[in-house]
Amino acid sequence: VPSFRLTLAYDGTDFQGWQLQTRPGARTVQGVLEAALQKLSLGRPVRVHAAGRTDAGAHALGQVVGFLLEREFAQDGLLRAVNGLLPPDVRALRAEPVSSAFHPRRDAVSKHYRYSLDTGGVQLPQRRRFAGHVPFALDAARVRTAAGAFLGRHDFASLQTAGGSVQTTIRTVSRSEARFDDAALTFDVEADGFLRQMVRSMVGGLTAVGRGAWSVADLERALERRDRRAWPAPAEARGLTLVRVRYPGE
Amino acid sequence: VPSFRLTLAYDGTDFQGWQLQTRPGARTVQGVLEAALQKLSLGRPVRVHAAGRTDAGAHALGQVVGFLLEREFAQDGLLRAVNGLLPPDVRALRAEPVSSAFHPRRDAVSKHYRYSLDTGGVQLPQRRRFAGHVPFALDAARVRTAAGAFLGRHDFASLQTAGGSVQTTIRTVSRSEARFDDAALTFDVEADGFLRQMVRSMVGGLTAVGRGAWSVADLERALERRDRRAWPAPAEARGLTLVRVRYPGE
Repeated sequence: VPSFRLTLAYDGTDFQGWQLQTRPGARTVQGVLEAALQKLSLGRPVRVHAAGRTDAGAHALGQVVGFLLEREFAQDGLLRAVNGLLPPDVRALRAEPVSSAFHPRRDAVSKHYRYSLDTGGVQLPQRRRFAGHVPFALDAARVRTAAGAFLGRHDFASLQTAGGSVQTTIRTVSRSEARFDDAALTFDVEADGFLRQMVRSMVGGLTAVGRGAWSVADLERALERRDRRAWPAPAEARGLTLVRVRYPGE
Repeated sequence: VPSFRLTLAYDGTDFQGWQLQTRPGARTVQGVLEAALQKLSLGRPVRVHAAGRTDAGAHALGQVVGFLLEREFAQDGLLRAVNGLLPPDVRALRAEPVSSAFHPRRDAVSKHYRYSLDTGGVQLPQRRRFAGHVPFALDAARVRTAAGAFLGRHDFASLQTAGGSVQTTIRTVSRSEARFDDAALTFDVEADGFLRQMVRSMVGGLTAVGRGAWSVADLERALERRDRRAWPAPAEARGLTLVRVRYPGE
């Protein structure tokens, strides 16, 4: 059976997240993609696996998914056919044949997420789908230092929202950078894996440091406590984008 | 009677343009703004004048409007009150008291519009509200040269869509620059005034040059003919943003 890998971009604003839901009527990215692929697979249901199960309202520029189809496609033909069937808020950017052993999440070496946070008094309507908003300035130097505290191997239990079901809460962060432009913070983070709402929790912590509610040492101590209740609320989902998933040799 | 000036940003995607329409049910920026201001003016209807009447689907980062209210407001108080009443796709960025003689359109010295055009095979969903799209590469050097042909004082009758009712079609363009980043063209144009759909027509002409259908000389000749039928169709409204309006001394 032919096996494929697609790279997807989506505007998650009007989706209840990536993952199919039992609740009827919930519009999910997985749902609209599987419905499109079924039409390309002789009408047979297609099960899709994704590298990252993005939250409701979160976005992707480089989500990677894998699936089997009942018929062959040339790469360009599959790309065009899928985009012809998907709604405009989801686009396939690349299609490739892969080994049937490929699993987008298990095979991933690392994932890169980006969070955008507007900090001006009034958020531009042009930014409201793709950036969170806090109406106060953040201390840039403190936020940059605090971002560095996430680097390396840590137990991130303090940053995991209830509902995750992972065997270990230890992750290794290889990149954690905060940049400021005008009245906006951009936070780039790459790790071998992420716990549920981990990036949004990181931004919640950075915001606490940036507004002066926490020192950098407070953030480090709260991280070490491995207790969700020691950590501020996660930032809004709308600022979060899955930028890229890396696989061996890429 | 207190007179005010507001600077507005809006995502025009879900509006039938700036201007009030006689057709009932048409959602316009002027309509939602006047409805909000009426609540701040002792319930009396408020008439708003704008610097530029943006098309259906076009956007603003710096639209300027003027109006009279039946009661006084401090600047910050007015800003907060208006934003509390406007829908999230329109935001007031600045509020100032002005002379009652102020007229946003007649008093403007120049307007700056920006057009974004994506030229990759697939447009990112994140860009679909704020950029037009043509699925082919444009020749950057030729487009930059062609943009220069609009500079200076010209009769732009070839670029006016039917329905305009202006006394003269002569305008002076003080800035006309095309930049390319990745698979996107950004066109910045500033002039003492614009005809109906003039910027979108400019981009239609630049696209014809960029894809090779026209030479730069063809564009110049079509401009000199002062005939709408000599010019290509205007680019999509969704790529257009009114960036800034300049007034004497600003």
